[in-house]
Amino acid sequence: MNRVKIIIAGPRGRMGSEAVKMVTNTEHFELVAVVDHKYEDHMLSDLDGFHSIKNVPIYSTIEKSLQSVECDVLIDLTTPEVGMHHARTALQYNVRPVVGTTGFTKADLEELEQICKDKNLGCIIAPNFALGAVLMMKFSQMAAKYFNDIEIIELHHDQKLDAPSGTAVKTAEMMAAVREFKEQGHPDEKETISGARGAEYNGMHIHSVRLPGLVAHQQVLFGSDGQTLSIRHDSYNRASFMSGVKIAVETVMKQDVFVYGLENILE
Amino acid sequence: MNRVKIIIAGPRGRMGSEAVKMVTNTEHFELVAVVDHKYEDHMLSDLDGFHSIKNVPIYSTIEKSLQSVECDVLIDLTTPEVGMHHARTALQYNVRPVVGTTGFTKADLEELEQICKDKNLGCIIAPNFALGAVLMMKFSQMAAKYFNDIEIIELHHDQKLDAPSGTAVKTAEMMAAVREFKEQGHPDEKETISGARGAEYNGMHIHSVRLPGLVAHQQVLFGSDGQTLSIRHDSYNRASFMSGVKIAVETVMKQDVFVYGLENILE
Amino acid sequence: MNRVKIIIAGPRGRMGSEAVKMVTNTEHFELVAVVDHKYEDHMLSDLDGFHSIKNVPIYSTIEKSLQSVECDVLIDLTTPEVGMHHARTALQYNVRPVVGTTGFTKADLEELEQICKDKNLGCIIAPNFALGAVLMMKFSQMAAKYFNDIEIIELHHDQKLDAPSGTAVKTAEMMAAVREFKEQGHPDEKETISGARGAEYNGMHIHSVRLPGLVAHQQVLFGSDGQTLSIRHDSYNRASFMSGVKIAVETVMKQDVFVYGLENILE
Amino acid sequence: MNRVKIIIAGPRGRMGSEAVKMVTNTEHFELVAVVDHKYEDHMLSDLDGFHSIKNVPIYSTIEKSLQSVECDVLIDLTTPEVGMHHARTALQYNVRPVVGTTGFTKADLEELEQICKDKNLGCIIAPNFALGAVLMMKFSQMAAKYFNDIEIIELHHDQKLDAPSGTAVKTAEMMAAVREFKEQGHPDEKETISGARGAEYNGMHIHSVRLPGLVAHQQVLFGSDGQTLSIRHDSYNRASFMSGVKIAVETVMKQDVFVYGLENILE
Repeated sequence: MNRVKIIIAGPRGRMGSEAVKMVTNTEHFELVAVVDHKYEDHMLSDLDGFHSIKNVPIYSTIEKSLQSVECDVLIDLTTPEVGMHHARTALQYNVRPVVGTTGFTKADLEELEQICKDKNLGCIIAPNFALGAVLMMKFSQMAAKYFNDIEIIELHHDQKLDAPSGTAVKTAEMMAAVREFKEQGHPDEKETISGARGAEYNGMHIHSVRLPGLVAHQQVLFGSDGQTLSIRHDSYNRASFMSGVKIAVETVMKQDVFVYGLENILE
Repeated sequence: MNRVKIIIAGPRGRMGSEAVKMVTNTEHFELVAVVDHKYEDHMLSDLDGFHSIKNVPIYSTIEKSLQSVECDVLIDLTTPEVGMHHARTALQYNVRPVVGTTGFTKADLEELEQICKDKNLGCIIAPNFALGAVLMMKFSQMAAKYFNDIEIIELHHDQKLDAPSGTAVKTAEMMAAVREFKEQGHPDEKETISGARGAEYNGMHIHSVRLPGLVAHQQVLFGSDGQTLSIRHDSYNRASFMSGVKIAVETVMKQDVFVYGLENILE
Repeated sequence: MNRVKIIIAGPRGRMGSEAVKMVTNTEHFELVAVVDHKYEDHMLSDLDGFHSIKNVPIYSTIEKSLQSVECDVLIDLTTPEVGMHHARTALQYNVRPVVGTTGFTKADLEELEQICKDKNLGCIIAPNFALGAVLMMKFSQMAAKYFNDIEIIELHHDQKLDAPSGTAVKTAEMMAAVREFKEQGHPDEKETISGARGAEYNGMHIHSVRLPGLVAHQQVLFGSDGQTLSIRHDSYNRASFMSGVKIAVETVMKQDVFVYGLENILE
Repeated sequence: MNRVKIIIAGPRGRMGSEAVKMVTNTEHFELVAVVDHKYEDHMLSDLDGFHSIKNVPIYSTIEKSLQSVECDVLIDLTTPEVGMHHARTALQYNVRPVVGTTGFTKADLEELEQICKDKNLGCIIAPNFALGAVLMMKFSQMAAKYFNDIEIIELHHDQKLDAPSGTAVKTAEMMAAVREFKEQGHPDEKETISGARGAEYNGMHIHSVRLPGLVAHQQVLFGSDGQTLSIRHDSYNRASFMSGVKIAVETVMKQDVFVYGLENILE
């Protein structure tokens, strides 16, 4: 198998630097360039943290990089505005984009889908590359067809400001879409201290635990007569996103369609 | 919707008595008869434990029951030998069987499949009706495509004789069928007390915990850089099988094909 | 060692019937009589559920039983009113009481303590005999001296009416008594769905999960930089109380003082 | 309250650099010097990673530091050989040592204990400063008096070479010292795959899970009729040791005796 030739945009970001590590450590991947508007005419090995990564040129724009090196896939880990321009441009050069940003508009997504169709090219846009978290949500949705008594416990470090977490709400939405509605708990249940039964979403309950020491964890519990099923994801650090990026790169080379959401490339 | 008319074979067994309870407590189900070779010419309400269940006749053979009452589905919770005869006979009377026994031979299954095809009738044979356990195995298999570092911890009461449990071995088999093979653990890892790393199955490890107080529990753990995913089923009592039987009855009325294994009717 | 001679009051209750089983199954215990106001002039083996327990007479009052048989310990599993009379009477006959009821008044407890002092006899009154739950609370209190970031998750079947559970509130009280006060969570944290952060008790948070299938479970989580500690108790059925009763009987024979609360006889 | 004046020996090590962070972030602590044989005549702020820590001189020997600055406590995070010399010297200067190394000999410990007695000074030597892990072991030992059915599950990253972990073996030893002996599991239990029931230690069973993504975790499970109790510690990074060092510093100022092991200063 030929190695997949990859350009990474945003190599100095927290996700980007993990992606550089993942690509250079994967045998069938090859990092051919990076895009960084701050460092024209340098090599990646000139930058702090990348001294050991040899022979990878930096280009200040996506256009220059695509004109200068041969490439199969663009991994973009920048911002929604830049990401859209990068994805559109990559497709014009017949390069398949794997983009990890939230915040694309509906119009953006439709435009990219149309270009993919016209050019018969794959493109994957994924707001969440944490493979385990995506599987947790997918399995939870599947289980919600059979169990309609469900509670979510999400646990994070105590610097997190919002409760419930975005992942918990998204999981609840996905389950509500397929679950037979039920107002859970006993009809006469009573909170002797307010808030004990957690946040309610569509009859389900969500509990947000915040403690120093914790990182990012979520457990979805399903109950029925005599049994419980639980699905839990524990994320300890940013490296957890890279297995998702890797699968996306492998998949985008095989599929000639536009895909939004990592869950849609997992069987 | 018309209520589904049901005959139960084996009503006095541990599963059977739970099934009687489930069918009579489900609004869209109707128990029209039971088959019990020991109690001809009685009503079910004559038997200990069933006094409150009125108007359900007992027949000593499947044939008599099918000739005497109108029926849609047979729930069979007897033995493999009896179960095969019951399923074959039910199909001949255009009644759809839901059978919860292990131990059918390959020839048995092929014969039933052929009858279903000829008569255009549904039939479900399921060795395991514990919905949560079946989903745990199904999700584990799906996750094993993406994570090839996997350990199983199964926990049971200390009266259990075999280790690992049958469910743990079956889960490992299902995962091995799709997982990219890997000899897990560090190549140089060393047990300072023999057995610490558990049982090995195809490079995965299985750990069997036995304690008084426990009932039947299994957790499948998946790990990759910076994250873990875990899927756990806790079974507390036999009632846990009944949600699976209920779904099987509902499904067998809608599908006109032979199905082996509850996992194959879950989407 | 001589076997401990035991009278049980309230043998037909849910706790009482478990106690009969425990006492008759413990080699160094001997059941010499039971007290049941409904069944004078019978033997325990005459009653449903006790047919196999031979040679144990039933007395209709505590006085009659104490006058008729030689005895070391009274296990009382009746009601607070009856229990107080039973305990007082037992002590007058130099029999040591082990009483498992809540609801004794302060005056009751002081009276019993005085009698114990006067007669130099042991007596144990315990509102909760679930050994594991009592240890969970004790350990949580000890840990709360060192970790002041604490959250409680309690999980029960969905027929439970009150949230949080009494055990959760009691655990929080015990911890608040020794914990350095802290208003937990980020000062700017915000609930986007009300209730997400649970019930607040003295700056700690309590979350109540209710699902069919669950029995009675509680987990106390402690967090600090880079680590979490968690203590969990799972109760599956009433038999879980009996190890506590057993330890209380063994202890009451060795200690000549009044004790309130199982936690105070555990070292 | 006066701030505790502290010297840290070994500031560039992994534990040492965390200790510098902890001491400078604790309001009632003051870092007055560090000992580092490599950097005479420098300030700590000259070294990489410590640029923001102002006004802390480096001395090349413990003697020079003790002669140059006024100090209450020495935190030593070097090696056993150096640590012994440091502790002995500190005590001679009436400075109380808190030493975090394993490997002291029995003679070393006895010598230090004698000096403490002679000078009426506190000194704490602790092979493990992870507060949560120490509490887990302490609670497990307490619970082992009441539950003699115990299994340990320890979970670590897959780069760990030995199984079971040192902490698991130490926990088992501590429990065996107080637990009523029992050969656990059913007498007729049988491993269909060898190793399933884990490592055996004194009749208890230990299971070692190894997966990428995991850090360092241990769960001790206790079972009896109808209930289980479990105590779990999760360690995510080295910062977890610092709460133990902090408590040791606070305690060594109040106690005028020699103590070995963090567990012996926790009530």
